[in-house]
Amino acid sequence: MSNLVITEQPARLFSFLGGDQGRWLVQSITPIIAATLAPAARLDVIAGDARTPAGVWTLRGVTSNVRYVERAEKLALLSKQEGLGRPGSRCGVLIPIKKSDEWWSLTQDERREIFAAHSKHIEISLKYLPAIARRLHHCRDLGTAEPFDFLTWFEYAPAESTAFDDLLQALRESLEWRYVEREVEIRCYADGD
Amino acid sequence: MSNLVITEQPARLFSFLGGDQGRWLVQSITPIIAATLAPAARLDVIAGDARTPAGVWTLRGVTSNVRYVERAEKLALLSKQEGLGRPGSRCGVLIPIKKSDEWWSLTQDERREIFAAHSKHIEISLKYLPAIARRLHHCRDLGTAEPFDFLTWFEYAPAESTAFDDLLQALRESLEWRYVEREVEIRCYADGD
Repeated sequence: MSNLVITEQPARLFSFLGGDQGRWLVQSITPIIAATLAPAARLDVIAGDARTPAGVWTLRGVTSNVRYVERAEKLALLSKQEGLGRPGSRCGVLIPIKKSDEWWSLTQDERREIFAAHSKHIEISLKYLPAIARRLHHCRDLGTAEPFDFLTWFEYAPAESTAFDDLLQALRESLEWRYVEREVEIRCYADGD
Repeated sequence: MSNLVITEQPARLFSFLGGDQGRWLVQSITPIIAATLAPAARLDVIAGDARTPAGVWTLRGVTSNVRYVERAEKLALLSKQEGLGRPGSRCGVLIPIKKSDEWWSLTQDERREIFAAHSKHIEISLKYLPAIARRLHHCRDLGTAEPFDFLTWFEYAPAESTAFDDLLQALRESLEWRYVEREVEIRCYADGD
């Protein structure tokens, strides 16, 4: 029996490779909760699968349907947000997190209550749009044993660094974050192309 | 560049192989909506990954956290349901479905409203517990291009066949099912072990 089959990937899969290649120069890798990731000089953000031995580590995730956001919130987010890849967005930050078994055993209404009512996750995110662009990737249901549940990739201009720090602090002080059992912060910078 | 890496799998991943092996004798493969699956004599239900050329087709999915069920509903379901593998459950049915892009672009509240208020999905499921055991598998966020979004595997005793037909009919008449764009029904039977 062999699992060596190359399978087609949907356009929603992205890979983040820590290693010595890629556009993004890694400035710091900081363990916020529990274990860190191995040091890497550069980060490569790739559309598709990249489970290769090329990197020091590879994190994979898929963009997916919204899990908690309601219609009015989705419209508010869509009307304010801007895409990745803006020329001035020279700062890139990857935040992989893993949530606890307790979080995953909550029901939909309980998770939504923590996410929205107590943690104001959407309100916090809205406040920093469009300055801070983000893309959320899900890892938990990939079918492989991934070290994290979510990978969030942020991009912003250097002038917005303080705003980004405020955003992170607000999220980390929220009730939702009590269910985070591993979190790493990977700060990157991109030179001119 | 090679993708030929064997990766670890979480215990939540299951594979359904249509072919000439496995405990389950396939009685019928019926296309309910859109394209059918290729004929297969037997169905093998395997814990873990099985992307091998051994089967005529392989469908994979992961069990995951609940997406719409609330606490009271979860408790009601848990208190009534029984597990797979009961000795008398000689009937097995696999129902792979794919939902439309329109469904996936709905927000959480909109999907919950269709799932619960209009379609009474939970109420219908509760009515047939514990006679009909089921396990739901998610395929959409596996990171590979899967032909379906969900695989539901049902097991019940032959005497419950009419009840099972009623359950299927109730679900297919629901508003939720208007968002199903592909559905196949694979009925199986297991001889004595």
